[in-house]
Amino acid sequence: MTVDGSGFDTERPRPPAGDFNDLPAHVWPASAHRRADGSVAIGGVGLPELAAEYGTPLLVLDEADFRARCRAMAAAFGGAANVHYASKAFLCTTVARWVHEEGLHLDVASGGEMGVALAGGFPAADMTFHGNNKSPAELAGAVAAGVGRVVVDSFTEIDRLAAIAGEAGIVQDVLVRVTPGVEAHTHEFIATAHEDQKFGFSLASGDAEEACARVLAAGTLRLTGLHCHIGSQIVDPDGFILAAERILATVERLVARHGAGVAEDLATLDLGGGFGIAYLPGDTPLDVEALAAGILGAVAETADRLGIPAPTVAVEPGRSLIGPAMVTVYEVGTAKTVHVGEGLTRRYLSVDGGMSDNIRPALYGSAYDGRVVNRVVEGAPTPTRVVGKHCESGDILVDDAAYPDGVAEGDLLAIAATGAYCYAMASRYNMLTRPPVVAVREGEARALLRRETLSDLLSLESENPS
Amino acid sequence: MTVDGSGFDTERPRPPAGDFNDLPAHVWPASAHRRADGSVAIGGVGLPELAAEYGTPLLVLDEADFRARCRAMAAAFGGAANVHYASKAFLCTTVARWVHEEGLHLDVASGGEMGVALAGGFPAADMTFHGNNKSPAELAGAVAAGVGRVVVDSFTEIDRLAAIAGEAGIVQDVLVRVTPGVEAHTHEFIATAHEDQKFGFSLASGDAEEACARVLAAGTLRLTGLHCHIGSQIVDPDGFILAAERILATVERLVARHGAGVAEDLATLDLGGGFGIAYLPGDTPLDVEALAAGILGAVAETADRLGIPAPTVAVEPGRSLIGPAMVTVYEVGTAKTVHVGEGLTRRYLSVDGGMSDNIRPALYGSAYDGRVVNRVVEGAPTPTRVVGKHCESGDILVDDAAYPDGVAEGDLLAIAATGAYCYAMASRYNMLTRPPVVAVREGEARALLRRETLSDLLSLESENPS
Repeated sequence: MTVDGSGFDTERPRPPAGDFNDLPAHVWPASAHRRADGSVAIGGVGLPELAAEYGTPLLVLDEADFRARCRAMAAAFGGAANVHYASKAFLCTTVARWVHEEGLHLDVASGGEMGVALAGGFPAADMTFHGNNKSPAELAGAVAAGVGRVVVDSFTEIDRLAAIAGEAGIVQDVLVRVTPGVEAHTHEFIATAHEDQKFGFSLASGDAEEACARVLAAGTLRLTGLHCHIGSQIVDPDGFILAAERILATVERLVARHGAGVAEDLATLDLGGGFGIAYLPGDTPLDVEALAAGILGAVAETADRLGIPAPTVAVEPGRSLIGPAMVTVYEVGTAKTVHVGEGLTRRYLSVDGGMSDNIRPALYGSAYDGRVVNRVVEGAPTPTRVVGKHCESGDILVDDAAYPDGVAEGDLLAIAATGAYCYAMASRYNMLTRPPVVAVREGEARALLRRETLSDLLSLESENPS
Repeated sequence: MTVDGSGFDTERPRPPAGDFNDLPAHVWPASAHRRADGSVAIGGVGLPELAAEYGTPLLVLDEADFRARCRAMAAAFGGAANVHYASKAFLCTTVARWVHEEGLHLDVASGGEMGVALAGGFPAADMTFHGNNKSPAELAGAVAAGVGRVVVDSFTEIDRLAAIAGEAGIVQDVLVRVTPGVEAHTHEFIATAHEDQKFGFSLASGDAEEACARVLAAGTLRLTGLHCHIGSQIVDPDGFILAAERILATVERLVARHGAGVAEDLATLDLGGGFGIAYLPGDTPLDVEALAAGILGAVAETADRLGIPAPTVAVEPGRSLIGPAMVTVYEVGTAKTVHVGEGLTRRYLSVDGGMSDNIRPALYGSAYDGRVVNRVVEGAPTPTRVVGKHCESGDILVDDAAYPDGVAEGDLLAIAATGAYCYAMASRYNMLTRPPVVAVREGEARALLRRETLSDLLSLESENPS
């Protein structure tokens, strides 16, 4: 990118791939399409009608698309129970119920995530409880609820959990989280001997083997497998395969130390999540079948070579299931052309949400695909920035794109692939109220989460209650 | 910083300035001190006692410190009405009431901020309503509430507000937000002809003058001044002075176009906020008196030179009033030593909050000063990272500091200067519940905002309500 002193990109900004009025199928929900009047419908319901009924901003979830992604992931990984939906990506009681209906298991990383899932009727036995710093109260709550597995993350936690399980008179199934020295992002991974992060036990240092020994020695814990997580937005199996190879080599060492039975104990190899999705038309979509086939084939081969039983591979997708199934619909409130250098202008489209409902562009520099969804828009491609309404100059949703200059105030602008880590990380910054989440299917819409109101903004006040 | 392949800083990490058990006065709340038993009290209340009563994490607000900062700012800028507390930094009804008791005015940037302030009894007439994309409903609500001034930000908005005021049968006071081509951060500023941002009307393009002309022509709007905002974390007057000079030169041109009366209309020069605070012991604290004297002197001199009446300077501090008055108290849940390279280790202290209650390290790379507050801690300075409990490796509160190796699980670790943009930007990521905010003064503590519960996490659910 060529930048002058003003920070403006002086090259002609890249227009969206294809026509601005397209809805690239690998980025938008499966059912998204433009109707005869030029507006967009998802799940058989027009986005303008949803905006009229629920207001904007508004999150729209394509239920059938989400369920189809759950099924495809389950099929690719040899069974729904091997797929644990990562609830941190997005969770509400109804989505928890859908996940259970599809037969998937669930990852939770706090007492709050477990509580919401339980409120949705999700069985505790199908949950795996994660976290680098679970509180004693969370561990006790998980044991009391009968959570299926706890992923232990520190020596302190092994002791705490063993004591809590003992007090409860149960034997708790656990996985041991390990750091295999593999870090992956998108198409590349790096491999090191060590990992400088808060999670897990290092394979290289021997901590992982020691953790397994301590779990085996604790009468109130049952070792059921090993867990790792290597990154996010990954579409290639190589990083997972290297991590699995390193973990299986550790299993071989554990067998040498504890006997063949320990390999039977370590029946689960949980390779975590991090499967990527396409945010922009030019992004490579995830090929779930190829990814799964690559991982499962390599794990079976490695186990065979090492002479240990092949473990069942579990995975923890969040973004890849919910991300592409949701869009955020905004209304353009103001359009402003700003001179940013000699003869250069940028068009600012201000929408009625922003960094409170999607912090990812500001936090990670994430890029998103936006389209006008109430009509077909014509006009000359124009350097455009989509910004929110927060009192902060970094409140940007789409940093630089070429939108037709026909986009106007009052248009509905939808941003695709906002299902993961948008609502889940939403704030009330500037006291903006969180938008509703509306599920659509076969022409029917229903609110899963209502819009916040001023009354909600005041609900935690100890004085001057609303 | 020297970094090896692992990303680890191989230089000895910088220890906190002074002793780890100190509480540097320019970073910590005014009343913070260590008691005879080694624990820390604020506002005459021990943090261990507060943690025992309210749990952790917990935000503690030194009321007297906040009020003293309000008074000092009011004195420096020639009157409390010239100081508009920027509610986006932190707002609840009680703080709104304190701000009013101190005579300050209030900036709000949404209907939500206005609504919370009104619920706290803050008079609408003392509010200024900001925002690049106020909705028609927000504008109508502001007019109906009798908000003192609206800062208009686009041509569209001038038309909308004029119509809304007309329908309400009132004349609305407005400021025009301009972009002076000055961008400041900490000790430096850059000056350009243009600004590539969503806010305001450009001085350089003539848009600012045109906006003033349109306001003057609208029978239902009254022009009362110009507004700008040049950045954040600024401790030096030079950027403000350059912005003021450019704005006053524009006033001179407006006088030439509209007559001398327009300078009387433009009686307020609102230079926005952005005053810096010290987050780390090595940071320069803000000298409010020197900053104000520099700005006020330069504005008077420039106006005199241009032969126009000197405007009243208004400012909009948020962080500099509330930031240093608050601390966040966490409990250390787990301590883990991680090998990060040959012979190199890093100690990870995991606390019971994280990026949900303080996104600033992840979002802006912000640094914070942490101290153990339940006792005096001894030990060898050890490379330490303070991390939260979220399921994300970037969930870091203090990236790299040298803490004594005596810091242990169960210790209370407080982080200073968390009053601004921490709670205000808090999320429920990982379904962590927002911490309480407790005010302390003269040995008394009272909760301003209670801790969220599972019931709050379920309160927006349309199905399966709690």
